[in-house]
Amino acid sequence: MSQPTVLLLGTCDSKLDEILYLRAQITSHFNCAVLLADIGRTPNTSIPEINFTHSKILHDDPQDYSSFSRNDYITHIIHHSTNFVRSLYQKHSFHGIIGLGGSGGTSICASIMRNALPIGFPKLIISTMASGDTSPYVGETDITLMYSVVDIAGTNSILKGILSNAGSMIAGAAAAAYHKQAEQKDQDQDQEPQRKGIAITMFGITTPCIEHITTYLHTHHPSYELYIFHATGSGGRAMERLIRERRIAGVLDITTTEIADHICGGVLSAGPERLSAAAETGIPQIVSGERAGEI
Amino acid sequence: MSQPTVLLLGTCDSKLDEILYLRAQITSHFNCAVLLADIGRTPNTSIPEINFTHSKILHDDPQDYSSFSRNDYITHIIHHSTNFVRSLYQKHSFHGIIGLGGSGGTSICASIMRNALPIGFPKLIISTMASGDTSPYVGETDITLMYSVVDIAGTNSILKGILSNAGSMIAGAAAAAYHKQAEQKDQDQDQEPQRKGIAITMFGITTPCIEHITTYLHTHHPSYELYIFHATGSGGRAMERLIRERRIAGVLDITTTEIADHICGGVLSAGPERLSAAAETGIPQIVSGERAGEI
Repeated sequence: MSQPTVLLLGTCDSKLDEILYLRAQITSHFNCAVLLADIGRTPNTSIPEINFTHSKILHDDPQDYSSFSRNDYITHIIHHSTNFVRSLYQKHSFHGIIGLGGSGGTSICASIMRNALPIGFPKLIISTMASGDTSPYVGETDITLMYSVVDIAGTNSILKGILSNAGSMIAGAAAAAYHKQAEQKDQDQDQEPQRKGIAITMFGITTPCIEHITTYLHTHHPSYELYIFHATGSGGRAMERLIRERRIAGVLDITTTEIADHICGGVLSAGPERLSAAAETGIPQIVSGERAGEI
Repeated sequence: MSQPTVLLLGTCDSKLDEILYLRAQITSHFNCAVLLADIGRTPNTSIPEINFTHSKILHDDPQDYSSFSRNDYITHIIHHSTNFVRSLYQKHSFHGIIGLGGSGGTSICASIMRNALPIGFPKLIISTMASGDTSPYVGETDITLMYSVVDIAGTNSILKGILSNAGSMIAGAAAAAYHKQAEQKDQDQDQEPQRKGIAITMFGITTPCIEHITTYLHTHHPSYELYIFHATGSGGRAMERLIRERRIAGVLDITTTEIADHICGGVLSAGPERLSAAAETGIPQIVSGERAGEI
């Protein structure tokens, strides 16, 4: 695209007024364009602002969605939209992504963002669910959540103020990403070699050990970047994800409490895949079992 | 201020590298300036980038903070910083606010933002706590949280990418707020009269009732704005807060489940102050006890 562009995920059947208000806010800043994708259950065919219609996202899939249960529909739209958004991302068609919703809309938008886009790409959701347990939405990613304060059910001056801030935030981030992308293209010839990354897990009692390690590595191996992950469940998941995204060269897994939490039902589990990414991708990993008994 | 300005709350003793990186990101966009306030425990006197020093925020309070417990220090710095930030806000000295931190830093930044600034003012925190229960930080406000993915303990390319997005987001929001403020000054003479707001509480089973009410009010009293609050604890708190901010003219409190949750220890309590703001501010309120028995 020849200008900063934001992809707006919208349930255009149930929250059209709010989506169009947000769209107008985004386009009023920093020369930003918006691509609006309709992810609502009932296709909206009445407004020209929709760039990606329901049938485009669903590839004219002939199934009768109106007969699906709510959960089945959500699973289906997430699957198709994720593929669609990933493909747009690979073509560099947009520089930031935004959505809004209650519990259902937040869940759909967050799943798409988590699965289609890498960490570091600007992502924002205005949500009624942002003041509470956000881990089902954010997971191990950098999805940014703004609490809508009032329900997203009709525009009013309070919601408009909040949507206005969200619009200028994502427009600002998209404009910055767009200009950075353009600069990077110019500099590609004489780019510095990437520094290598070492992942380290930390949590309370292992902090003194990690401090020794980081001091040692900074002093003796300054060409390595160190990534500290707080082993609270999301931290371990984030590490596994970044290993799979090939952004980590080695792992010092000093804090394996998440394993015990997973096995014994503690609240800080990182899921059953914890400890598997390094082996799968073939990078060196040192695992300490010392703290694996703690919950 | 004659340019868009972001107030950056920083623990300049423990996270200086990250704060200075974030500061540079903000100032690189949209002609934004930064005011950096040092809220760390140990005063940083070594760098000129700090605009508001520790002693300025604490009004040269002669107490020996090094002897305070961690919790006492946090209570103390929150109290002083809140007053300081509120006074800067009243002088229109900044147009957006940002902070970063782990559990302690997030708690300090969020308390200051919640207590010093109204809903609708742009607020962002990059936090290690953003993928989990955020209600202690966000509460009933529009504080926006971005998960840092890696621990905020030394800069690396992943954290830099995230801080860069956060910087462009808050710079975008501050630039927009700055220009809106300037426009509003021009239009103050011929401003439209403010619409009146009616607050309505809703939750699951009361939805059909609320739908009837909103249809009726839209049809017969279109000059009223309707604010729907999802009675999940944060929703009720938000309503009470907006009543106290004098942004609500009347209340239809149809969904009082939060009262039962408060009395019987349910998870969706809105605290002991629920139901008090309308009486305190003297606005009309209709309360339905019909759903007050549900938890």
